Amino acid sequence: MAAALALAERGVGQTGNNPSVGCIIVRDDVIIGRGWTQNGGRPHAEAMALQQAGSAAAGATIYVTLEPCAHQSERGPACAQLVRDARPAKVIGAINDPDARTAGQGFALLAEAGIAIEVGVMASEARRQLAGFFSRLERARPFVTLKMATSLDGQIALANGQSRWITGEYARAHAHVERARCDAILVGAGTVRIDAPRLDVRIAGLESRSPRKIMLGSGDAPQGWEVLRSLDDLGQLGCNTLLVEGGAKTASAFLRAGLVDRLLLYRAPILIGAGTACLGDIGLGNLDAAHGRWQISLSRRLGKDSIEVYDALI
Amino acid sequence: MAAALALAERGVGQTGNNPSVGCIIVRDDVIIGRGWTQNGGRPHAEAMALQQAGSAAAGATIYVTLEPCAHQSERGPACAQLVRDARPAKVIGAINDPDARTAGQGFALLAEAGIAIEVGVMASEARRQLAGFFSRLERARPFVTLKMATSLDGQIALANGQSRWITGEYARAHAHVERARCDAILVGAGTVRIDAPRLDVRIAGLESRSPRKIMLGSGDAPQGWEVLRSLDDLGQLGCNTLLVEGGAKTASAFLRAGLVDRLLLYRAPILIGAGTACLGDIGLGNLDAAHGRWQISLSRRLGKDSIEVYDALI
Repeated sequence: MAAALALAERGVGQTGNNPSVGCIIVRDDVIIGRGWTQNGGRPHAEAMALQQAGSAAAGATIYVTLEPCAHQSERGPACAQLVRDARPAKVIGAINDPDARTAGQGFALLAEAGIAIEVGVMASEARRQLAGFFSRLERARPFVTLKMATSLDGQIALANGQSRWITGEYARAHAHVERARCDAILVGAGTVRIDAPRLDVRIAGLESRSPRKIMLGSGDAPQGWEVLRSLDDLGQLGCNTLLVEGGAKTASAFLRAGLVDRLLLYRAPILIGAGTACLGDIGLGNLDAAHGRWQISLSRRLGKDSIEVYDALI
Repeated sequence: MAAALALAERGVGQTGNNPSVGCIIVRDDVIIGRGWTQNGGRPHAEAMALQQAGSAAAGATIYVTLEPCAHQSERGPACAQLVRDARPAKVIGAINDPDARTAGQGFALLAEAGIAIEVGVMASEARRQLAGFFSRLERARPFVTLKMATSLDGQIALANGQSRWITGEYARAHAHVERARCDAILVGAGTVRIDAPRLDVRIAGLESRSPRKIMLGSGDAPQGWEVLRSLDDLGQLGCNTLLVEGGAKTASAFLRAGLVDRLLLYRAPILIGAGTACLGDIGLGNLDAAHGRWQISLSRRLGKDSIEVYDALI
């Protein structure tokens, strides 16, 4: 299942609204099929792996990171049907599909056909990888990551506005990989006007993975950008994952609204002092309310800089 | 030498203006004497270790973290004389004493007596441990550590002033150990008026290690405190190590004056937003000038919080 999750990782940020799924087919301890959701969402992982395995899939064991879909679409037959027709001996899944059109019916269809089913293997890892897909289906809004790049004292610019560069090349490259992993990037209208950010993925080989660009606020957006007028309409973006890159006003608005699921904090070993703080009012009334909301899940050095990732606990 | 440095660590913050030194005497692979600078500065490490070793020191090897002093004082004979008279075969030292009254003469006296001398073993570690002693003698001011305890976004209080507590008990206990390791603690007059901090070491068994308390600024200090009217007079404190604990105005003044040698950064996994920033104006004109000044030397979790230590590079 770990190998299937690694395959699924390849599609993260590339599958549109479809979940990025991984699938591995094993027969007599040999992998005979590997698949992951392809760009744009099709073919699905199971279809790709089954095509590789061919008739050898009969009697084999199939590992899949998400329940095979049970609903037929105009773009092809349901994966549960494809899997059933391949007559594997066993299907091992990580988690059920939260999509109401599948939601257990995929595994049920296989079980009815006499195929052994085991569900729940590395479920939390799969849930984490598919957090955006689950967020859109269960909360009707994308999974939101807030990125901030600050000095040790939490500043994102000098008082005169100078902000290039606080972090170094490794941290900036890491941030570009994070861009490639999400469906859309959002910045505030003020940042668009002042910084005119390109928000694309500037890493050799990953340029094609540049996500949708969203401007939050009023005014005209640059060509090729979409506009979100209010956070109340966040769900209308329809994407699974959203990366919020600033500025301070936009970051604070997302935090104030309780809309941040994950915090990416890049920090440079510098002190700025009186400059531009990374956050403004986030609606905090007392210190007790600030505690217990964030849990660190990663801490790593990136050259002279560091990155910390915090997950929202509530 | 590592063991001698560990012995010296016991006296850090307890030896007044004397350097905290460690000494180990080894004969036939057996330790026959262990010493470290005692409270208030006397006896010296060498005297203590030689007393333990007695006549067995003749022909032994002596490890000492700092050159034995060559100047006689009314409080006892010079260590170099004591060591010479004990007739060891070899003396291994980490570094020379920067005190002009010794400055190589201690080792010279031993070499003249036919004792083998080796200097420079773990020199950088010893230099680091004795940074305060070297600072006072070479720069006529204490080695200054600035402590800040902040949220992830660099705030030390809410806008309404609430600051208890940002960090948890482990971080606070760590900060108290740091207090015990320094000679004096300084806070600004504003912090004295508003917070009335006790600045003592509240760890069982270490209460007696509470350092001198200094208030920076104008106005009357509480009983038992000393007053520093201006940073220009910093050297007049006469101590080896100083811990600056705040507030933001005082921290900024030290940074602006280029007087911070080490940064202790405690951070809690919370966001505060618009509150009280840990720093004000530190005199930074452009971002280039901010880079290359700090190098991380420690990063560790303390319960839910973290500590990072940065050393000044210039």
